[in-house]
Amino acid sequence: MELKSLVNSFIVLLFLFFVVGIQNSVQGRLLSSVLKPHRNDAPAYARWLVSQNSWGVLNTISSDLGGAPFGNVVSFSDGLPNEGSGVPYFYLTTLDPTASNALKDQRSSLTISEYPLGTCGKRDPENPVCAKITLTGKLVVLDNKSEEAKLAKSNLFSKHPEMKGWPKDHNFQFFKLEMEDIFMINWFGGPKPLTVDEYLHYKQNNLALVQSDTI
Amino acid sequence: MELKSLVNSFIVLLFLFFVVGIQNSVQGRLLSSVLKPHRNDAPAYARWLVSQNSWGVLNTISSDLGGAPFGNVVSFSDGLPNEGSGVPYFYLTTLDPTASNALKDQRSSLTISEYPLGTCGKRDPENPVCAKITLTGKLVVLDNKSEEAKLAKSNLFSKHPEMKGWPKDHNFQFFKLEMEDIFMINWFGGPKPLTVDEYLHYKQNNLALVQSDTI
Repeated sequence: MELKSLVNSFIVLLFLFFVVGIQNSVQGRLLSSVLKPHRNDAPAYARWLVSQNSWGVLNTISSDLGGAPFGNVVSFSDGLPNEGSGVPYFYLTTLDPTASNALKDQRSSLTISEYPLGTCGKRDPENPVCAKITLTGKLVVLDNKSEEAKLAKSNLFSKHPEMKGWPKDHNFQFFKLEMEDIFMINWFGGPKPLTVDEYLHYKQNNLALVQSDTI
Repeated sequence: MELKSLVNSFIVLLFLFFVVGIQNSVQGRLLSSVLKPHRNDAPAYARWLVSQNSWGVLNTISSDLGGAPFGNVVSFSDGLPNEGSGVPYFYLTTLDPTASNALKDQRSSLTISEYPLGTCGKRDPENPVCAKITLTGKLVVLDNKSEEAKLAKSNLFSKHPEMKGWPKDHNFQFFKLEMEDIFMINWFGGPKPLTVDEYLHYKQNNLALVQSDTI
């Protein structure tokens, strides 16, 4: 009977361990998902939004479609999360309209939502408390032999490892968005005042994530 | 000792029930998440993509930003999932640039990704197997007293119940995208040929979801 008692105790312990473990992992995920910069720290919030996201919609002017604004889903990277430069780089092929549009007309914007990060609680994606950012400027192709192309490659391939294997004959090239304007809404009361300079010179290692008081 | 045995058996059963229950719920979620139309059925795939998503990026021409294409995160609805008409409706205020841009220049597009639906497996958001769609056309405001405005309201408010409480003094208005072109990639080999007519006349109650063979 000694052995049986031991087995019983073991089963009870295992059960408790299992339940507690699951609760912790769920809680851990929820806690980390609501940590974000304070809404009043516009440069920090913008950099966090760009850094955490891996994809967005890149807009160009489509001469094929009567000059219409043409949005396209793309992957981008400014570096690994919390290590980025704030400058979005892209890996595009002219087989897709966006790159060929940009080679004719550089006017462009990149739009990113906080919604898919899961940090908006149950709010509607259009609720101003669920942040959105649009970086407007020029979409320029990088000289493949430049130092910046090496940086773009490293930023992109570290965040999007699948890109390393994309077909060579598709002539993918590195592009960057040279920003001229930033539009960001992350609360009520209209867009947050934020210049490209303030955004670019924000030191991401100052980033203090706070427990959101909004969810 | 009889009672002790009974308790032991109960504990073992409870443990097994718990483990099996968790496995099933995880599996159930994964199974349902990979049900989608076959990739070769372009109208079905496009309608599914629009119907399942609740938000996208709506692009207009920004006269304030030198005619740049300006993308903006918005909520939209063509109706409840699997009951929609395929026509995206929006609830916009001119306090946000998109609506005021559209009132000056109707050229517009709506871009939607499959990625946030969670049905792309571990693929990169730019992988052509992770579908993306861009509906290009004219963004028009609806006469608030029209039948179509009633339809827009019902489609939007059923999918986005939060909208019912949005502030009256923001002058939200109903808009729709009058589609002229559809660009959709949902596999290798470039955009799927798909006309607006084929898209609009697809009967969504024919929708046969298949187990994806791609994930």
